Amino acid sequence: MIMNETIKTILSRRSVRAYQQEQIKEEELMTILEAGRFSPSGMNRQSWLFTVVQSKEMLKKINEACRNSLLKSGNPAMEERARRSDFSAFYNAPTLIIVSGDKNLMTAQYDCTLALGYMFLAAASLNIGSCWVHGITVMLNSEDGKELKKELGIPEEYQVYSSGAFGYKATEPTCPPKKQLDEIMKIIK
Amino acid sequence: MIMNETIKTILSRRSVRAYQQEQIKEEELMTILEAGRFSPSGMNRQSWLFTVVQSKEMLKKINEACRNSLLKSGNPAMEERARRSDFSAFYNAPTLIIVSGDKNLMTAQYDCTLALGYMFLAAASLNIGSCWVHGITVMLNSEDGKELKKELGIPEEYQVYSSGAFGYKATEPTCPPKKQLDEIMKIIK
Repeated sequence: MIMNETIKTILSRRSVRAYQQEQIKEEELMTILEAGRFSPSGMNRQSWLFTVVQSKEMLKKINEACRNSLLKSGNPAMEERARRSDFSAFYNAPTLIIVSGDKNLMTAQYDCTLALGYMFLAAASLNIGSCWVHGITVMLNSEDGKELKKELGIPEEYQVYSSGAFGYKATEPTCPPKKQLDEIMKIIK
Repeated sequence: MIMNETIKTILSRRSVRAYQQEQIKEEELMTILEAGRFSPSGMNRQSWLFTVVQSKEMLKKINEACRNSLLKSGNPAMEERARRSDFSAFYNAPTLIIVSGDKNLMTAQYDCTLALGYMFLAAASLNIGSCWVHGITVMLNSEDGKELKKELGIPEEYQVYSSGAFGYKATEPTCPPKKQLDEIMKIIK
C-alpha cells in the first residue's frame, strides 16, 4: 500500500464520542466548511446548506428534541439511553454541522453525505474529532422537528441528510474491528 | 484557512471525464480500496461490497447495458448521447468501482456513498482521476440490470448505491464554478 498524508488521514480517522468543551477555532471551522464546499455534487448543483450550531442554548434545544424523539422511538435501548440525565445525542460536542439539501433533487442525499464525509477528513487532518449523528437528521425531518428546523433557518423544501459532531477529542479513540479487504471486495480482471 | 496535504487533496480534486487507457497499478488500486475499507459505516457494520471491474470485456458489457438503459430513459438529451458510436457511460475509464450494500440496512446508502467518496480522495492523493457515474448504479438496480448484477457477483439482497470511474487523467480538469461559502452556510453562535 502507498502511504501519504491524505491516506494517513483517511486510515487513521476514527469516530469520536468524547469531546472537550473548548470550542474549535474559527479558522479550523472555516477550513472544515471549505472542505464541504469543494466536495463533488451531482451536476455541480451545490444545492446544500451547511448549518453550524455552536450556541449553547441551541445545542441544548437540539439535544432535548433528540431526547424526546428517542423517548417515542419504541426502541427500549434507545428509550433507556434518552432517560439518562447526562444524555447527549451528540456526545456533548461543542459544534454541530447539519447538512441539508433540496429534497426535489435526486442527488441530494449523495451530495450531503459526501460533503459531511469530506468535512470529517478535513477535521481529522487538523486533529479535530468528528462523529456522524443520525439522530439529529431523523429528528429534524420528523413532524416534531419541523419548528426547530425552521428556527435553524433550514428552508422548508430542504431536507436534512447528514449531521455531524465536531470538537477537540477528550480521549483518543481506538480502531473498531475492521473486515479484511478480501472479505469485502471482488476484482474482475 | 489552514492548509495541509489532506486539505489540499480535498480542495484540488476535480471530477475527471477523460482518461488514459493505461491501467492503474495494483498497488494504487489496493490503496484506494483500503481508503474505502476505513471509511465510517453505521454501527461499524461494514456491510458493503467493493466490486472492481477492469476486464475489458466486462467494461464493454456494462457500457452497452448503460447505453440501452439510457435509450429507454425518455430523456431526449440522454437518448441522443447514448446513440453516439463513441458513447461511454464512464468516460472510457479503465477501472470501475461499484459499491453495493445490504438494502435492508437504513444506513446502506450513506455507508456506500462515504466509501466511494473516501476512495475518490485517496485516488486524488495519488494523482489518479475519478468520477461519480450514477448511470451504472441506476442500470444495475433496474430490472434490466438484474442479470448483469448477478454476473458481477453482487448478492441479490445488496443494492448498488455508488459507482465510480478511476484512471490516469488524460487532461487536467478545471475547477467548475463554486458557490461562495457565505451563500451555503449559516452559523448559529
